[in-house]
Amino acid sequence: MTRFGRLEESIVELARWASLEAIRDAHADDERLDRVIVATQNPDEFTGRGHLSTLVTDDLGLVPAAATRVETGPSSGASAFEAGVAFIGAGLADLVLVVGVEKMSEVDRGTASSILAKMMSYENETVYGGTPATLAALIARRYMHDYGLSREDLALIPVKAHQNGSHNPLAHFRKVITVDSVLNAPVVASPLTLFDCCPTSDGAAAVVLASEEVMHRLGVRDRSVRVLGVGHATDHMAVQHRLSLTSLSATVNAARAALGMARLSIKDIDVWELHDAFSILELIDMEDLGLAPRGRAIDLLRDGTTSIDGTAPVNTTGGLKSRGHPTGATGLAQIRDLVTQIRGEAPKPLQVCDAEIGLSHNIGGFGNNMVVTVIGRV
Amino acid sequence: MTRFGRLEESIVELARWASLEAIRDAHADDERLDRVIVATQNPDEFTGRGHLSTLVTDDLGLVPAAATRVETGPSSGASAFEAGVAFIGAGLADLVLVVGVEKMSEVDRGTASSILAKMMSYENETVYGGTPATLAALIARRYMHDYGLSREDLALIPVKAHQNGSHNPLAHFRKVITVDSVLNAPVVASPLTLFDCCPTSDGAAAVVLASEEVMHRLGVRDRSVRVLGVGHATDHMAVQHRLSLTSLSATVNAARAALGMARLSIKDIDVWELHDAFSILELIDMEDLGLAPRGRAIDLLRDGTTSIDGTAPVNTTGGLKSRGHPTGATGLAQIRDLVTQIRGEAPKPLQVCDAEIGLSHNIGGFGNNMVVTVIGRV
Repeated sequence: MTRFGRLEESIVELARWASLEAIRDAHADDERLDRVIVATQNPDEFTGRGHLSTLVTDDLGLVPAAATRVETGPSSGASAFEAGVAFIGAGLADLVLVVGVEKMSEVDRGTASSILAKMMSYENETVYGGTPATLAALIARRYMHDYGLSREDLALIPVKAHQNGSHNPLAHFRKVITVDSVLNAPVVASPLTLFDCCPTSDGAAAVVLASEEVMHRLGVRDRSVRVLGVGHATDHMAVQHRLSLTSLSATVNAARAALGMARLSIKDIDVWELHDAFSILELIDMEDLGLAPRGRAIDLLRDGTTSIDGTAPVNTTGGLKSRGHPTGATGLAQIRDLVTQIRGEAPKPLQVCDAEIGLSHNIGGFGNNMVVTVIGRV
Repeated sequence: MTRFGRLEESIVELARWASLEAIRDAHADDERLDRVIVATQNPDEFTGRGHLSTLVTDDLGLVPAAATRVETGPSSGASAFEAGVAFIGAGLADLVLVVGVEKMSEVDRGTASSILAKMMSYENETVYGGTPATLAALIARRYMHDYGLSREDLALIPVKAHQNGSHNPLAHFRKVITVDSVLNAPVVASPLTLFDCCPTSDGAAAVVLASEEVMHRLGVRDRSVRVLGVGHATDHMAVQHRLSLTSLSATVNAARAALGMARLSIKDIDVWELHDAFSILELIDMEDLGLAPRGRAIDLLRDGTTSIDGTAPVNTTGGLKSRGHPTGATGLAQIRDLVTQIRGEAPKPLQVCDAEIGLSHNIGGFGNNMVVTVIGRV
């Protein structure tokens, strides 16, 4: 993956650098790739460039490989990965490049917000001035009311994110922050401040997927990671149409499918990548995934369970908050960072001891299009 | 599928009507669909609405089904179909709705052209004022020069398209035209006139894909059609980077893959859907697919081989020229119209005798992202 942040490179260049690194890493430089799957949320409006499927494939010199763009909002990365798994699983491909990219800094913040607001319900939310941040604030308030979560405790999430991200050379933000800096940051949507919200970022991340046979042929068995399970589910667009404010049912459904396919339980997971676009989501994600009972996820933050040296490390490289959130790239960055953990190649202070199985959770829309991916040592 | 044309319905309504018809047709009204795949080129810029994956799924009452958008420009429909085949082939789904939709009439023609121009090479074509029509004119000129095709003969393509489309109640244009009307229409890009160019349209088309087991459970074996082969290939974005102006290599590669998977040769195909966004493309498509020797496709028009009662009927329901071209929907409309042919349910004057196997050819970009699909009687 590229560094995430405000970057000079064009969207095509970002996709190129991540892709070439992934192809090199897979020892596939001299191979003919069957297919390229590009995950990107809205290059047309963020950058004025479109048709990324062919554009990226041609730029990489991979013509005549089949090329498809997959888009499910900010879960596009994991959705594209899942599609790659399907093509290989069906025998329609043996060697697939999946690259996620977004270049969000070419438009101003207002424009970026309008573009991102399209993944919410227009009739029920956007038309009344709703934004992802106001919806996150709404559920944060409800969560605090229902479970007695304090504003200070909620700040532990971004504090941990930045603590981890400070050791990640590719992270958008590498500054350590404190509970006070979170509380004193400008309010975005009360009770959430700027430091409860992930940034918009530029960046790309890529993986190479191969069939078992091709993996052996490439001689990369010892550095390969196996896809154990994928799960994908939707929920109603409008938050008000859901049964609960403090649970995202699509996470529950996607995780059940992914773990079922993997024949694993959450106890088997060694390292977690959760979609913390807003601080409150990390707690809700943990509870929806079964990592903590309802209302009690914060305990695992407080007692260090989700720290690097805890028993359930979450967002070891900074999460969306610190690593950054180029929307189309995030799902693949999550998977890429799990791969480095499983290989034992994470930056030293972030390396989890003996990580064998990882789970990533990627949110599309405001909680309406979730993809869960489980990968493990071959 | 819905009627194609300038329609009042919103993009969500169009997707809804095509989807509900497909679900009803598959006797899947009471089923839980595993997955929805939405093909749409650029709803964000054409309509201001985005995140169609969840939006359409929620509108249809299909939550929590997994939902993915697939986009490859105007071949999005066939690419989404191919992805659906992959999910079922991999055992990741058993019952999938694939719906393609575009609503292009909410923006003015200039805006629509700018949106569509993104599937060409910006640096090599768009920046110099290139448009899809000017590229088509370029290759038409070259083809006429190389093979002695006359302007009058080229007009036979749209004349046949409108002749067929006049019997298709869902077609955008149902008016019979003559060679003279083509020649006397306003010039778009010499030598092409307005009647050599497909319109921009609104519309949706949908199919339901099922595993063999689910097909039997639904009791629809007698009306089902089997997916025999899918093939997909890219070419360089810029026409000037290709080896030939009068052949689209991605068609050749995609067809080879699809026919190879189907273990069929072109002699086995009973009915054809070719991507005639511009008249000249129908000739080039026929030659790239092996239906005619180089430069001689026009003979098959002249002698009626590609007419309804010929031995290789092409675009029996009007093609893109007369049926219309809502970009995300076209690939699925092609497949849907082949299904009606294979079932013997095409409008009477358009029904091909004993059609058992059909091939559709869907172009994305200006000839840079092709998908070929082969389907046949179960």
